[in-house]
Amino acid sequence: MTRSRAGESAAAERIRQAAIASFAEVGYGGTSTRQIAKRLNMSAAAMYPHYRSKEELLYAIALEGHRGVLAALRAVDDESLPDADRLRAVVGEFARWQAERHDLAKVVQYELHGLTREHYRAITAIRRETTAVLTDIVRRGVESGQFSVDDPDDAVLAVSSLCVDVCRWFPSRTHDDPVALGRVYAEVAVRIVGG
Amino acid sequence: MTRSRAGESAAAERIRQAAIASFAEVGYGGTSTRQIAKRLNMSAAAMYPHYRSKEELLYAIALEGHRGVLAALRAVDDESLPDADRLRAVVGEFARWQAERHDLAKVVQYELHGLTREHYRAITAIRRETTAVLTDIVRRGVESGQFSVDDPDDAVLAVSSLCVDVCRWFPSRTHDDPVALGRVYAEVAVRIVGG
Repeated sequence: MTRSRAGESAAAERIRQAAIASFAEVGYGGTSTRQIAKRLNMSAAAMYPHYRSKEELLYAIALEGHRGVLAALRAVDDESLPDADRLRAVVGEFARWQAERHDLAKVVQYELHGLTREHYRAITAIRRETTAVLTDIVRRGVESGQFSVDDPDDAVLAVSSLCVDVCRWFPSRTHDDPVALGRVYAEVAVRIVGG
Repeated sequence: MTRSRAGESAAAERIRQAAIASFAEVGYGGTSTRQIAKRLNMSAAAMYPHYRSKEELLYAIALEGHRGVLAALRAVDDESLPDADRLRAVVGEFARWQAERHDLAKVVQYELHGLTREHYRAITAIRRETTAVLTDIVRRGVESGQFSVDDPDDAVLAVSSLCVDVCRWFPSRTHDDPVALGRVYAEVAVRIVGG
């Protein structure tokens, strides 16, 4: 990477970070590109070469967040593990990720209404891949007889929903350690699938 | 109630409904009182006798939503039932409520950042009462030996979180019946507490 390209992407990264902070604090609708620029002591015109609109910025953040979760889950998913341990690893990582990056996660989960239809569809496709990681584990566990669920899709819905909701409330009076929370939710997930 | 008082509260109700629709759609930060008035073909000045600010309106909605959930759970909570059935009834109702009133619930769960510190504290007090309904059931189930959990508070956190998150995704491709979802989540909750 040349020096100017590296400089360019560092600026884009700073802009995304400022946007995440503002969207998480007052929402996408409550934020203007002018306000984001102001957080960075930058003119709105200086942001334009990086992100031409607030929607483009939201899309970049949504892509970063959704690709990040998917990559994190795939990195810890190990098909050679017993089904329950495989589920523990993936759910623990999912909850940990949402807790550690709760501002990014909050934007990624609650502000998607700001996306164009086409961008929303692209994000939905990544969400489906993330769901598929969990679905594969639950289905195999049911096939192998390790798990017992009436409807694998309902179990996956409950487990995903639990992990996603972490970004709404984390940190709290009782939980401020992402790794410890991951361990607790890993056991909750195993119970949900009857493992 | 006199006719004029009834008329006044009907107007206040219409204003709250318009605000809920707008807050759920574009967020608290993305909505102005002027926009809410416009939805009702009303002047901003005509709203003033009912709600003097956007924050006052949000607080009224947050009170309505949180009191509504608490009353709904208490109405179905029956201490004479076996512990697992008692949990099923309350969780089924919690999930159903969040699904049926997902716009109101969304505002109530995700837009509280707009409240003053004092109003936020008042809402938090109601949330604690709602949590207490579940905590009482789980603690009693553990004492009676019907449930088996390492930490009752973690089990209550997971069950509450699951129910609250319903308003983010409901309805979906797989779930559009609040009562059916309530039944599914009632069983998930019983599994979480090892019942």
